[in-house]
Amino acid sequence: MKFCSTCGSTVSQKIPTDDTLHRFVCDDCDTIHYQNPRIITGCLPIYNNQVLLCKRAIEPRKGWWTLPAGFMENGETAQYGAERETWEEAKAKVGNVELYTLFNLPHINQVYMFFRSDVIDGQHEAGVESLETRFFSETDIPWDELAFPTISRTLKLFFTDRKTNNFPVRMEDIGFPNRPAKK
Amino acid sequence: MKFCSTCGSTVSQKIPTDDTLHRFVCDDCDTIHYQNPRIITGCLPIYNNQVLLCKRAIEPRKGWWTLPAGFMENGETAQYGAERETWEEAKAKVGNVELYTLFNLPHINQVYMFFRSDVIDGQHEAGVESLETRFFSETDIPWDELAFPTISRTLKLFFTDRKTNNFPVRMEDIGFPNRPAKK
Repeated sequence: MKFCSTCGSTVSQKIPTDDTLHRFVCDDCDTIHYQNPRIITGCLPIYNNQVLLCKRAIEPRKGWWTLPAGFMENGETAQYGAERETWEEAKAKVGNVELYTLFNLPHINQVYMFFRSDVIDGQHEAGVESLETRFFSETDIPWDELAFPTISRTLKLFFTDRKTNNFPVRMEDIGFPNRPAKK
Repeated sequence: MKFCSTCGSTVSQKIPTDDTLHRFVCDDCDTIHYQNPRIITGCLPIYNNQVLLCKRAIEPRKGWWTLPAGFMENGETAQYGAERETWEEAKAKVGNVELYTLFNLPHINQVYMFFRSDVIDGQHEAGVESLETRFFSETDIPWDELAFPTISRTLKLFFTDRKTNNFPVRMEDIGFPNRPAKK
């Protein structure tokens, strides 16, 4: 950030009065421009005991498998955002949408949320951000071709919890591989 | 938003290629300025079966009682942010921090997260954003003087769940009073 989005003047990093952190503050109109973590919301879409994955058509991780997910938008709930992303990326409609996993990724200022959900009628198709969509059973999951740690962790938790049919909501931290966050 | 924070030129609202929503886009350098919901993270601090509340010293809702909470910052986890806010607003240190309630507030682009936690040694004191801090037992909660619906809902759920000592994570939507969101 170099310029104030309110008045167009330059900004400087400084600690505002009654604050403890450096913020971008306008040199002219004194507007404080806060920057905060963003939420990525998505689904773990299930049908006939299989999980729906999408092969990414875009960077990062183009060609790798992922769960349908994306940035939560203003004006929507996290569940709605997860359903929207599942429609956009996998052309799948889901029901019984239940919060399941949350991940803090403090090194990239993100919080992930995944919702377990049932794919209605089992219908799916690659959306514009996907090369391919496909149902996988547990034994077929392409573990070495998953796009992000949040995906592999959600799938591992799901297959473990499925043994007891008990799916408590879990929040975990994911850091750099060589700088692990508190679990 | 009127100006581009990258180059200082004017911005216009338009739908970028491969997007479906209006964004602020720079008229000169084409940078897309996304705006996304923010997370408010806080604690439900408990000691000797009592709940620690803070009387707000700042607007909105100055003089009303709240749970310690505030905007999650870049570089931190939601739990860390909740502990930090509890220290800043109530000078209380907490342990056993466990995710408990989440609320979507789509009309103001916010997601709340509250963490059940134990107040270490029962120590507390008003921070700079509080007029007063105090432990309340269930029968003393000032229900008509609570600052926000997220606070009253979290307290109601807690006192209900405490009867069975079972505290599942819950996510709910809170909308305008006359425009209720899906529960």
